[in-house]
Amino acid sequence: MPDISTEEAQRVLSAGVRRAAEMALPVNIAVFDTGANLKTFVRMDGALLGSADIAMGKARTSALFQLDSEALFEYCKPGGTSFGLENSNGGLVVFAGGKPIRNAEGVVVGAVGVSGGSVAQDAEIAQAAAAALAAASV
Amino acid sequence: MPDISTEEAQRVLSAGVRRAAEMALPVNIAVFDTGANLKTFVRMDGALLGSADIAMGKARTSALFQLDSEALFEYCKPGGTSFGLENSNGGLVVFAGGKPIRNAEGVVVGAVGVSGGSVAQDAEIAQAAAAALAAASV
Amino acid sequence: MPDISTEEAQRVLSAGVRRAAEMALPVNIAVFDTGANLKTFVRMDGALLGSADIAMGKARTSALFQLDSEALFEYCKPGGTSFGLENSNGGLVVFAGGKPIRNAEGVVVGAVGVSGGSVAQDAEIAQAAAAALAAASV
Amino acid sequence: MPDISTEEAQRVLSAGVRRAAEMALPVNIAVFDTGANLKTFVRMDGALLGSADIAMGKARTSALFQLDSEALFEYCKPGGTSFGLENSNGGLVVFAGGKPIRNAEGVVVGAVGVSGGSVAQDAEIAQAAAAALAAASV
Repeated sequence: MPDISTEEAQRVLSAGVRRAAEMALPVNIAVFDTGANLKTFVRMDGALLGSADIAMGKARTSALFQLDSEALFEYCKPGGTSFGLENSNGGLVVFAGGKPIRNAEGVVVGAVGVSGGSVAQDAEIAQAAAAALAAASV
Repeated sequence: MPDISTEEAQRVLSAGVRRAAEMALPVNIAVFDTGANLKTFVRMDGALLGSADIAMGKARTSALFQLDSEALFEYCKPGGTSFGLENSNGGLVVFAGGKPIRNAEGVVVGAVGVSGGSVAQDAEIAQAAAAALAAASV
Repeated sequence: MPDISTEEAQRVLSAGVRRAAEMALPVNIAVFDTGANLKTFVRMDGALLGSADIAMGKARTSALFQLDSEALFEYCKPGGTSFGLENSNGGLVVFAGGKPIRNAEGVVVGAVGVSGGSVAQDAEIAQAAAAALAAASV
Repeated sequence: MPDISTEEAQRVLSAGVRRAAEMALPVNIAVFDTGANLKTFVRMDGALLGSADIAMGKARTSALFQLDSEALFEYCKPGGTSFGLENSNGGLVVFAGGKPIRNAEGVVVGAVGVSGGSVAQDAEIAQAAAAALAAASV
C-alpha cells in the first residue's frame, strides 16, 4: 500500500492552511497515513483548542475506513444499520471534515482532518487540503 | 493569549459562592485557564459529590471551545451537524453551567463551570461568577 | 466521621499559600476530604503545571491511608513489604508533600497535598497548611 | 505567559528536521505550548512508528515542568526523592529528547520532543530545534 510521504503530508497541510487563511478561519489540521497513524499536525494561531482532538479524530476515522468522515454517519445515524458504530475504534468522528488523500494516480495514501469552523467550512478546507496531491500531477 | 491569574480565579470563585449562598444552593465551582487546565476549585458544604466532575467538565468544555457549554449541544443534539461531538476530547459536558470568563477588556482569560443545582440554577451561578472580572472594571 | 468543611478547607489552602509566598515558591495545593474526594484546589501563578496532578495525588494518597504520603514509600520501596503498592487505587504518590489534616481535637478530617518545589519544600508548605485547623483552637 | 505561535512552532520543527536530515536519522518531532497542548507534529519518512508517542510524551513532559525531560529522571531514579514521579500526569517520559523552547528574550514559550534515534541523538536534535527561536534574535 503506498503511503503518504512527509513532503506530501506537508503539502496537504500547507494547502489546508492556505485555504483556511483565505477564509480567515484558524483551524486544526491533521494528516494520518494509511496505517491510521498521525503523520503531521498543526494548530493554527487562534484555532479552538478543543478542535485539535476533533481534527485528529476526523483524519483517523477517514484513514480507518478510506471514506469521508461523514459517510460513517449514514451507518450509525438513528435508523441506520450500525447502531453505535461511532464508539468503535476507541471513538470515531462521523461528521464532515475528514477526507481520504489520493495521489496523482487516485490511490488513497492517507487522510486529512480539519476542525475549527462550522462543519461546512471544515469540509471545504479538508477538500482543498486533500486535493493538494492530485493537483500536483497537473 | 492572556490567562487568568490566581487572584482573578479566586474572585470568580467567590462571586459564584456568594450567588450560590444567596440561592441557598451548595454547588461545585471550577475555574480553568485558556490552556484548559484547572486553576481553582471548591466544593461547597453539602454540594452533590457527583457534581464535582460535572463542574470541571463544564469549565473544561467552555475553555476548550470558548463558548457556553450548552452552545455545544446545538451541534451534537439529534439532528445537529456534529453527531457525537460530546465524545471528543475525552468527553465534553454540553449542558448549561459552563461559561467563558472575560476580563475587563472583553478578552477570554479562562472559563468557569458550576454544578449542583438544576441546569438553570447552575447557569445563573456561572453567570454571576464569570461576570466577576468584567465588573471589576467599573 | 467528621469531615472538613469548605471554610476549613479554605483556611488550610490559605495557610499553605501564605507559607509558599513567604518562600517565594508558587505551588499547587489540593485539599481532599476523608472520602478521598477533592474539596478545594489552587494553582498559584507560576506554579509548575505538571505539579497540579501531583498535588492532587499526594492529598488523595494521604486521605486514602490517613498517613503522610511518604509513609507509603516504606511499604513499596525496594525491599519493602508491598511491592507495587503505588500502583493501587489508580496510582498513588508516595513521596513527601501529602499530609492528613487534623481538627482541634486531633481527629483527621481530610488531607492536603502540595507540589511545585523540592520534596522538602513541598512538605514544609503542606505542614503549614495542615496545621491551620489545629492552630485555630489556640 | 507568552505562548509559541504557529510560525515559531514550524521554525522549531524545521530546525529539528534539518538537523535530523544532516544526521540521516528520521525522527518524530512534536511541539507543545505552555499549556501542555500539542501545537505541531511531524513524523519523518522512515521514523519509528512507536517513537511518535514518545516524542509527544517528551514534549509534554518538558512543557509540564519547564525542564529538559531527563531532568525529571533525577527525581524518580532509584534512590531519588520522588519515587514513581514518572507515573503522574497520565505518564511522563523522563529520558532525554524533550526541551523547553525559549524565545529571544529567554522566556519559555513551549517545548519540543524528539524520538527516533538513540537518546543522545534525540537530545541533539531537540537541542537544535529548541534553539531555533533564540537564534532568530541574532
